[in-house]
Amino acid sequence: MADVDFKILAGAESRDFKAGDTIFHAGDSASEFFVVKNGTVEIRLGNRMLEQVSENGIFGEMALIDDASRSATVVALTDVRLVPIGQKQFLFLVSQTPHFALNVMRVLARRLRKANQLT
Amino acid sequence: MADVDFKILAGAESRDFKAGDTIFHAGDSASEFFVVKNGTVEIRLGNRMLEQVSENGIFGEMALIDDASRSATVVALTDVRLVPIGQKQFLFLVSQTPHFALNVMRVLARRLRKANQLT
Repeated sequence: MADVDFKILAGAESRDFKAGDTIFHAGDSASEFFVVKNGTVEIRLGNRMLEQVSENGIFGEMALIDDASRSATVVALTDVRLVPIGQKQFLFLVSQTPHFALNVMRVLARRLRKANQLT
Repeated sequence: MADVDFKILAGAESRDFKAGDTIFHAGDSASEFFVVKNGTVEIRLGNRMLEQVSENGIFGEMALIDDASRSATVVALTDVRLVPIGQKQFLFLVSQTPHFALNVMRVLARRLRKANQLT
């Protein structure tokens, strides 16, 4: 799991969801990605489970990278606390913290290897 | 196509391949990624064509990101001239040029969206 250094989140507001809540749907427009502070979410596409993301993991980064709509649906498997991070802060993190940029790349590379194995 | 700014390649050596040559095989160990200077290559996995990459496009970046083996095979469709970039320079580019880091993320995000559509 490519984790986010929580120091970058100091002072960031969090958002809570209940188990079973949908955090976003595939096709939704997007302006932020999320760091999981507590709990577990599941990334789904149609009826396939793509991945589960737990504490310190990230999701929703793709729509910020390519300015497109959400590529998948994300549902809270447990009660979760998420830290949303907007486009501007995302670009700041990429430019100021190479470690963060590499972590995002690792998340994407891992998901891509997995997707290619499935096809 | 997420292109690489060619200024970063000033002075870099290039490597030529003939049409039909295999540049690397899935499973090979890896120490560099490639920028296409001239020509077109095709990324293949088994008997599936994943993507064609032409001038200024990049490929082979995944193995540098996650220190794993090559995830796919790449074959020259035409005579091609490639600029190989090693791990050390890759990390330098990510840390010094946020534009480059975002370009790599865009390539990965585009490939991941495509892979998820196929599955």
